[in-house]
Amino acid sequence: MSEKELFNNLWVLISGVLVFIMTISVGLLEIGELGEDHRRSLLKTILIMCSALFFMSFVGFNTAFAPTINGLIGNPFYNGIFLGGFSSNAYGVFSGAWWSMAPTYFNTGITLPAYFFFEVAFASVTLALVGVVVLRKVKLEAFFLYSIVYFIILWALPAAWIWNPTGWLYSIGVRDFAGGLVVHGAAGAAGLGIVLQVWREEKKKGLKESPQVRVNLSPGWLTLSVLLLWLGWFGFNSGSTLALNLEAQIVVLTTFLAASSAFLSTLFFRYIMTKENPSLLYAVNGILMGLIVITPLAGFVSPASAVVLGLIAGPLFLLCEKWFSKFKWFTDPVGLFPGHMSGGLFGLLMIAFFTQKPFASDAGSPNLPNGLLFGGGYPALQQLGVELLGVAAVMVTVFALSFVTMWAINLVLHGTTTDYKKEQMIA
Amino acid sequence: MSEKELFNNLWVLISGVLVFIMTISVGLLEIGELGEDHRRSLLKTILIMCSALFFMSFVGFNTAFAPTINGLIGNPFYNGIFLGGFSSNAYGVFSGAWWSMAPTYFNTGITLPAYFFFEVAFASVTLALVGVVVLRKVKLEAFFLYSIVYFIILWALPAAWIWNPTGWLYSIGVRDFAGGLVVHGAAGAAGLGIVLQVWREEKKKGLKESPQVRVNLSPGWLTLSVLLLWLGWFGFNSGSTLALNLEAQIVVLTTFLAASSAFLSTLFFRYIMTKENPSLLYAVNGILMGLIVITPLAGFVSPASAVVLGLIAGPLFLLCEKWFSKFKWFTDPVGLFPGHMSGGLFGLLMIAFFTQKPFASDAGSPNLPNGLLFGGGYPALQQLGVELLGVAAVMVTVFALSFVTMWAINLVLHGTTTDYKKEQMIA
Amino acid sequence: MSEKELFNNLWVLISGVLVFIMTISVGLLEIGELGEDHRRSLLKTILIMCSALFFMSFVGFNTAFAPTINGLIGNPFYNGIFLGGFSSNAYGVFSGAWWSMAPTYFNTGITLPAYFFFEVAFASVTLALVGVVVLRKVKLEAFFLYSIVYFIILWALPAAWIWNPTGWLYSIGVRDFAGGLVVHGAAGAAGLGIVLQVWREEKKKGLKESPQVRVNLSPGWLTLSVLLLWLGWFGFNSGSTLALNLEAQIVVLTTFLAASSAFLSTLFFRYIMTKENPSLLYAVNGILMGLIVITPLAGFVSPASAVVLGLIAGPLFLLCEKWFSKFKWFTDPVGLFPGHMSGGLFGLLMIAFFTQKPFASDAGSPNLPNGLLFGGGYPALQQLGVELLGVAAVMVTVFALSFVTMWAINLVLHGTTTDYKKEQMIA
Repeated sequence: MSEKELFNNLWVLISGVLVFIMTISVGLLEIGELGEDHRRSLLKTILIMCSALFFMSFVGFNTAFAPTINGLIGNPFYNGIFLGGFSSNAYGVFSGAWWSMAPTYFNTGITLPAYFFFEVAFASVTLALVGVVVLRKVKLEAFFLYSIVYFIILWALPAAWIWNPTGWLYSIGVRDFAGGLVVHGAAGAAGLGIVLQVWREEKKKGLKESPQVRVNLSPGWLTLSVLLLWLGWFGFNSGSTLALNLEAQIVVLTTFLAASSAFLSTLFFRYIMTKENPSLLYAVNGILMGLIVITPLAGFVSPASAVVLGLIAGPLFLLCEKWFSKFKWFTDPVGLFPGHMSGGLFGLLMIAFFTQKPFASDAGSPNLPNGLLFGGGYPALQQLGVELLGVAAVMVTVFALSFVTMWAINLVLHGTTTDYKKEQMIA
Repeated sequence: MSEKELFNNLWVLISGVLVFIMTISVGLLEIGELGEDHRRSLLKTILIMCSALFFMSFVGFNTAFAPTINGLIGNPFYNGIFLGGFSSNAYGVFSGAWWSMAPTYFNTGITLPAYFFFEVAFASVTLALVGVVVLRKVKLEAFFLYSIVYFIILWALPAAWIWNPTGWLYSIGVRDFAGGLVVHGAAGAAGLGIVLQVWREEKKKGLKESPQVRVNLSPGWLTLSVLLLWLGWFGFNSGSTLALNLEAQIVVLTTFLAASSAFLSTLFFRYIMTKENPSLLYAVNGILMGLIVITPLAGFVSPASAVVLGLIAGPLFLLCEKWFSKFKWFTDPVGLFPGHMSGGLFGLLMIAFFTQKPFASDAGSPNLPNGLLFGGGYPALQQLGVELLGVAAVMVTVFALSFVTMWAINLVLHGTTTDYKKEQMIA
Repeated sequence: MSEKELFNNLWVLISGVLVFIMTISVGLLEIGELGEDHRRSLLKTILIMCSALFFMSFVGFNTAFAPTINGLIGNPFYNGIFLGGFSSNAYGVFSGAWWSMAPTYFNTGITLPAYFFFEVAFASVTLALVGVVVLRKVKLEAFFLYSIVYFIILWALPAAWIWNPTGWLYSIGVRDFAGGLVVHGAAGAAGLGIVLQVWREEKKKGLKESPQVRVNLSPGWLTLSVLLLWLGWFGFNSGSTLALNLEAQIVVLTTFLAASSAFLSTLFFRYIMTKENPSLLYAVNGILMGLIVITPLAGFVSPASAVVLGLIAGPLFLLCEKWFSKFKWFTDPVGLFPGHMSGGLFGLLMIAFFTQKPFASDAGSPNLPNGLLFGGGYPALQQLGVELLGVAAVMVTVFALSFVTMWAINLVLHGTTTDYKKEQMIA
């Protein structure tokens, strides 16, 4: 391994460690917003982390990141189960770069262990985001079964399509820097599939609307969780260059500036709306919304663009939150739909507006055109169309597969939902 | 970028991530010492972090670290607002080293993004230390306005004078390794400006003494916060070499040995004073005092000197705490004055006693003379004089500007203080 | 320092920072399992960290890692007290690699500061594991005295024998990758020495059985502690290659796969046993058991072997827990004996079964034979014998010295134990 490649691997490992923190931090976010008696939320996120490691290493890493079959899905048998299995040929499987990190493709020299570790942390936190709608309503065993399908198919498909250099969406030009669509958008689509099945079962039980879970702040946990998530986002975005170059350092700037700008605009507009001192809840959600919005284009834009995007993210969250709170057939107190789904997709589309080639090029996307706001013209419009196509393909597919998965689990387990009132008692 | 420079940048980025943790950890320290109902403390530290990122990137980084105007303040227009703004000339603004990190000056090759990220984390945690005297007494909007002035002027001035190689105090020889004066001492001076204005308003309300906020331990949060602060100090001190050399590694030793020695001496002398088993509160404050005292000279001294300094730090804290607790016109339950201010200034002056050239040289201060205890003689005495001048200049300036800022905010907002009793009710 | 050596040092420093987190996280684990009123547990782990830094730097690092006297103990005067003391000869003591990291031995170029920092974090967390049996039963001053002996002799001996390349057990072929015996097994032996003395005093007070401390979950702290410990284990195992090579990256895989597999098997078998939904407690203990079992051979095995070992770790923990809970003359609610001691020793013996030379070779143990399951034959059996000898020597010695130490402290302090009932009241 050259010294440059060793730097890249070290960067990805450090980033991976930070992203690893995020899954269980989503559990802490849940008790921060809903109260510490939601201990099931904590068990759920630990389960997600372990399930991700086990089933991604079993085959899910291959279905996402092995050379694809017709651009649709990674070859599940490419690398054997458990990342090389018992092979003692450590200098075969483990030597040098993973195929897509070799000179033919991304040319960063990232090894299988480093790349797996980084991406499994991504997959895991994505399901943690999906899981905030599970609350105490879905049986733990149902969610565990769901997680198996999720890590082998549902998470893998968008990754194989967009982050795998042989994927069909990548081939037609869809770009998504650190996961506005692959992570946040797709998490929303998967969540919609889950709440739809939950609502079908609740209706069958005779409920007129879905029991709403109320916010009940636990200030210490809420603060700690946003600190850990923000820390994780350092790795999430900056590590997504998969190389320790100047652009990786610029991504630190765009990520942190978007977060702070979104915080300020969220508190400002919230104050305009309520004329009251802002609460910790909106502080936290503001920061998260800024981080979400910048994610898909953190490597493509200038620091000042990141500030603008952050300032927009604040009121966007407040509007989306208001809109989604109208629906009573599901409950989403932690904000999967107004936050992650809306913010992720919005940020993705902003690629066609804010991208500047020098940044994007250094971030590994040299073919991305300048955005509309930077003289991109027709190629930028075309990029917008391509991204929209990506959104449609991913959201429809993930939503449909998520719902079908829940529906099938429903058949197997005779219901995916718990007796919610009883669950509340036992926590 | 050469490989050596890449190492330095990676080191500063990793250190920056650790220092980033510290701001919000000060919020956790506050609820650890004062009780979890102080949720406003948490919101405050989140606000500080975001305000630091926004206003330092807006112009505060320039006022501190751009080439200075007559040694007094960095040129605010040097690098454009938001670190280069919308410039897509990524290979101009972002290429190579920041001017003061280029061969002419410190010659470490640190880039703008890495240096900004590291220093904004420093600025942020400094205001977090100042903010421990705010408690529930200062209106959040007043503190937010204060933070804007703080990051553009108050924090920037001492940094421009001492850490900027064209600053006037740097030019006459003032050295402060990681911020005994720039961070801890100046935080105390700023805090004094705030409590003075608070007391003026409290007196006007007819109070005979300032309402004292009592310690109310929350053991889990207190322990977690000291763990995170200690972790942050790894980056704070070791990153301050701005290069990954042997001295950076020695700083890890001096930092950690001072902390552990101060812990032991604090508990020992506390036991002598009270004949009771020591409490978690003194354990935490002992560690923090050791870390504070070593900060200004962690890169200049031997490991055994760090142990001696740590052993002194313990009784120093206990004495200062006793002395400051006599005053009833302010309340400082978390210990800004006896801890950060006293410890930081004490450590700074110890530069003239404990410095050993081989260490200082490798830490980027080759002109620093040996200390009085190591045969420094007259040059060491001169260094003591220079450091005292630095202390006087910084403390007076920051105190005066801090007070004037609060006084002006008082005019604008018709009072900077809340109705404290009511605030206690609503937390 | 060559670039390759700089990488290795950076890797060890980063790993050391992560391991540093673990000691106090054991305190958080204790309040997570026993309730937040166990604030003494928190003070205890802070004390352990500080005592480790102080006394290891005083002389304990030498007794463990200086060239040994006849293979038995490191020369306590090799490097002076406090790691070179006041010597300003920074380019003597601090230049280049620590003797055992120089080309003659491990040839990784790790410096004294980096190596000390890494190993002191190991020593510290080992005593934190021992300390989970202290609960509120042992006087804090007794435990402090114990810690001094511990860091100078008790921890140092197994390290000098097995991790020091001139140690007698190392010389005859005992290998222990990251501390199945040196850390976890020896922690169990030391703990047995403590509970034996405690029980002798309890019997003398007329007790028929030792007061049992009950589990009382604090879900937030429990979850946070397992997150931090898992994070720490990244450094613990991956850093133990003492070099940033491919094997270090493979260790990330084996470590994380063992943890997740053990989680799944623990919950599965626990469900089989109780037919109830698994609790957070078993989730946490399952992960920890997987991490413990893989520790002594994480660098020697393939990823799939790590999965197998993890799957075995789950039921192993459940069986051991059941067996140890029969004894009523001590109480071990956090699981030192069924978890750390049993898991560490089991993993150590598995070296003779699962090792594959290509992995072991890259991890710095080129002489280790293939395991019995990989065609190791007679050399593997011999390795099993050698490891068993190592277990016997370390466990007997540490147990005996631990008991003698407690017995001597008992004489000095007129009893090592508190009035447990009274302690419960004051927490």
